[in-house]
Amino acid sequence: MSGDVRVCFVGDSFVAGVGDPLLLGWAGRLGQRAVADGVQLTAYNLGVRRQTSADVLSRFGAECEQRLLAGTDARVVVSFGVNDTTHENGGPRVDPEGSAVNLTKLLEQAAAQAWQVLMVAPPPISDAEQNARTAELDERFAEICASAEVPYIQVHQALLGSEVWMREVRDGDGAHPGAAGYDVLAALVLPHWREWLSR
Amino acid sequence: MSGDVRVCFVGDSFVAGVGDPLLLGWAGRLGQRAVADGVQLTAYNLGVRRQTSADVLSRFGAECEQRLLAGTDARVVVSFGVNDTTHENGGPRVDPEGSAVNLTKLLEQAAAQAWQVLMVAPPPISDAEQNARTAELDERFAEICASAEVPYIQVHQALLGSEVWMREVRDGDGAHPGAAGYDVLAALVLPHWREWLSR
Repeated sequence: MSGDVRVCFVGDSFVAGVGDPLLLGWAGRLGQRAVADGVQLTAYNLGVRRQTSADVLSRFGAECEQRLLAGTDARVVVSFGVNDTTHENGGPRVDPEGSAVNLTKLLEQAAAQAWQVLMVAPPPISDAEQNARTAELDERFAEICASAEVPYIQVHQALLGSEVWMREVRDGDGAHPGAAGYDVLAALVLPHWREWLSR
Repeated sequence: MSGDVRVCFVGDSFVAGVGDPLLLGWAGRLGQRAVADGVQLTAYNLGVRRQTSADVLSRFGAECEQRLLAGTDARVVVSFGVNDTTHENGGPRVDPEGSAVNLTKLLEQAAAQAWQVLMVAPPPISDAEQNARTAELDERFAEICASAEVPYIQVHQALLGSEVWMREVRDGDGAHPGAAGYDVLAALVLPHWREWLSR
């Protein structure tokens, strides 16, 4: 295993860290911790606002191939789903079956490239009905990742119970927290991130 | 002009911020300053290690199109060149004529999409001969940007004279500085970045 670790963080606006005045998000915070731990890390943030699982799948392979060179310890952290469960025109932007297929395909593509994957659950926002749909998707994603032997970090329920996360989302744009909320999410993922990087 | 500003930072490892333990680089530092100034900014970092002007041109359009939605104030900050002037197999990875053509094409593509562009010069590293080649390219890039009416920030000479930048590069991997070096570069670009964002 090369000590030259390259990680693409792929997903939606939460991955991109929208709402964080430090422009780090949870991905940047995890990266900083890894560097402090002595990991020789190159991190690429490929989170894009408004993107569903279908949008992410459509660009995932091409964008990661540009960044994950042969001979490096090539890894991908994935997180999406909240844009899938957003209702537009009377239904979700991507239905749960579609989300499941998209995740399955993405994991297959990553496996074919020998990229190790870690997945982080879609977080809650300030819309209880949508959160219920996202929580169902969360369960489905957990099963798919278990089948693929990919670690899946179920942060959704913990964030629903986080006063900091829910308050910052409510006080923000209704979906994204600020710096303290991203601190909370990063702290939830941190032990899993460390364990995964040590493999 | 929409107040919803979306900026893609496109280029090489210096854009990605390689060497910075904070994982911000000069791009992240400029983004933080804009947010502090009250700009409603979404920043996407599309710097990739080892990439030449040819590599950047090959993915520039597709990656920016994913991120620069219609109806937003869509902008691109570009910086590359040091990988072009790196010698491999007895010559530069991209010769100056090729670099010039690649930049010209990139600016044409951006103009066709109505994306405003700001360009930052390729910085010096710890190899004087390569720096001389990069300085020549810097002059050429400045002319091309002037013709295209794109602001070009000539940081190369200033960084050659920066004790902090040159020391961190030398003490690092020979090419990339640490946090303090990126502070210096960001400070050089900051007034131009602010002026450009206000247009």
